[in-house]
Amino acid sequence: MYVNEISFRVRYSETDRMGIVYHPNYYIWFEIGRTDYMRSLGCNYRDIEEKGILLPVIETHCFYKKPARYDDVVTVKTALKEFKGVRLSFDYEIYNQKTELLSYGYTVQVFVDKNLKPVNIKKVMPDIYYKLISNK
Amino acid sequence: MYVNEISFRVRYSETDRMGIVYHPNYYIWFEIGRTDYMRSLGCNYRDIEEKGILLPVIETHCFYKKPARYDDVVTVKTALKEFKGVRLSFDYEIYNQKTELLSYGYTVQVFVDKNLKPVNIKKVMPDIYYKLISNK
Amino acid sequence: MYVNEISFRVRYSETDRMGIVYHPNYYIWFEIGRTDYMRSLGCNYRDIEEKGILLPVIETHCFYKKPARYDDVVTVKTALKEFKGVRLSFDYEIYNQKTELLSYGYTVQVFVDKNLKPVNIKKVMPDIYYKLISNK
Amino acid sequence: MYVNEISFRVRYSETDRMGIVYHPNYYIWFEIGRTDYMRSLGCNYRDIEEKGILLPVIETHCFYKKPARYDDVVTVKTALKEFKGVRLSFDYEIYNQKTELLSYGYTVQVFVDKNLKPVNIKKVMPDIYYKLISNK
Repeated sequence: MYVNEISFRVRYSETDRMGIVYHPNYYIWFEIGRTDYMRSLGCNYRDIEEKGILLPVIETHCFYKKPARYDDVVTVKTALKEFKGVRLSFDYEIYNQKTELLSYGYTVQVFVDKNLKPVNIKKVMPDIYYKLISNK
Repeated sequence: MYVNEISFRVRYSETDRMGIVYHPNYYIWFEIGRTDYMRSLGCNYRDIEEKGILLPVIETHCFYKKPARYDDVVTVKTALKEFKGVRLSFDYEIYNQKTELLSYGYTVQVFVDKNLKPVNIKKVMPDIYYKLISNK
Repeated sequence: MYVNEISFRVRYSETDRMGIVYHPNYYIWFEIGRTDYMRSLGCNYRDIEEKGILLPVIETHCFYKKPARYDDVVTVKTALKEFKGVRLSFDYEIYNQKTELLSYGYTVQVFVDKNLKPVNIKKVMPDIYYKLISNK
Repeated sequence: MYVNEISFRVRYSETDRMGIVYHPNYYIWFEIGRTDYMRSLGCNYRDIEEKGILLPVIETHCFYKKPARYDDVVTVKTALKEFKGVRLSFDYEIYNQKTELLSYGYTVQVFVDKNLKPVNIKKVMPDIYYKLISNK
């Protein structure tokens, strides 16, 4: 199974007054992992959107084990969890520079057209479908 | 069962280029619901933090049914889901001004001290414990 | 001169690890003031956008005097600073519940079409022009 | 004059429903530039904060020329504008991957202690003072 990895530094703006990263920001990091996963397979999400197909999120789940802190370098590991043609879900794990697991979770997305109606990506963008399915 | 309600207008900053509210922002709204729930019972979260007890989030879950849009007036309905003394979980539903259900979910929090070690709120802040438990 | 006022509570998400409101968030509050100013004159910004006219920001300036803190109730006071037909600028002041001035600043916006080309609002939406100009 | 450069990809979360980057986010990027500037001189901002010295922002100014868009790779160029010992100001320019200037601006910060009282960094952290002053 292919696992994508991307690393970046925690921003000051991502912290809260508890002194740690504010919890919804992990979903922004999951999205960075997800788009980097797709980019690495040749599926640039910006190009998909520009052709009129969107990929809104319909479920998000996260479990927080240890806090991320300002200036940490975190790594998002992303793997495809499930994909048949309309729904697409990913698993994520986030680590800090000491390779401690900070959080993990998954999200579910669905391919839709500009009116937010679900579409089967196999029919409308077969190249994207085959690139994604080959890594499941 | 007590259900707290709070309403506010969707901010421009909360939208993304899909033209709808960016999905992690629902968790910011869940938190607004959760703190308003606690405030309405006389448990001001700022006061709790100032006495050295924090309430970090350890799980978040959200299901997205319809998009919230800029300038909508949304309502968060919050109810206590589970509480024994250390872990505290809440259920949320978000509606727009047409009373359409936009999303629902739940979060789990845990009472901790400044070193992020779990504490039993019944022992350290019995007044908070009894105010919360009476509404379960 | 007409001065619009709108008040709301500081969100946990708006704080940073310094324990105070993270500085760019004041611009989100300026925008809340600006859109409430326009709404109060019968110029709903969402309606303007839906007719194809946008109002991107071309300059922002803010001076920070005292920190806003979590759970404070802040008030944004907004006044029209300058307006001729294309460029529109607003002055803002932000106060806390003790009526302490926390910050002040101004922003400059420009009316544009969907291709981000400047337009004279007097020509394309005279009703909006006259509502705004009457309050300068 | 030393000019620091740092590049990163625009996040989906940074866009708004106008389809471009939401304007206050440029200040988050300015901060990334500022902290990378300081890190490159051996002045890690996290270490400074952990020794009890903070650097809150007291003025922010930005001029927006062209929009940044999702998935662009932007570069922040940061230079020290003014520094005497208490106040510290930086100039910034932001470019996209086509080397188009998107925005420019400056911010003013002040060294303070934990009670937010100004301090002369030359006295309390002379090593930081000399590292910064040598690059003015």
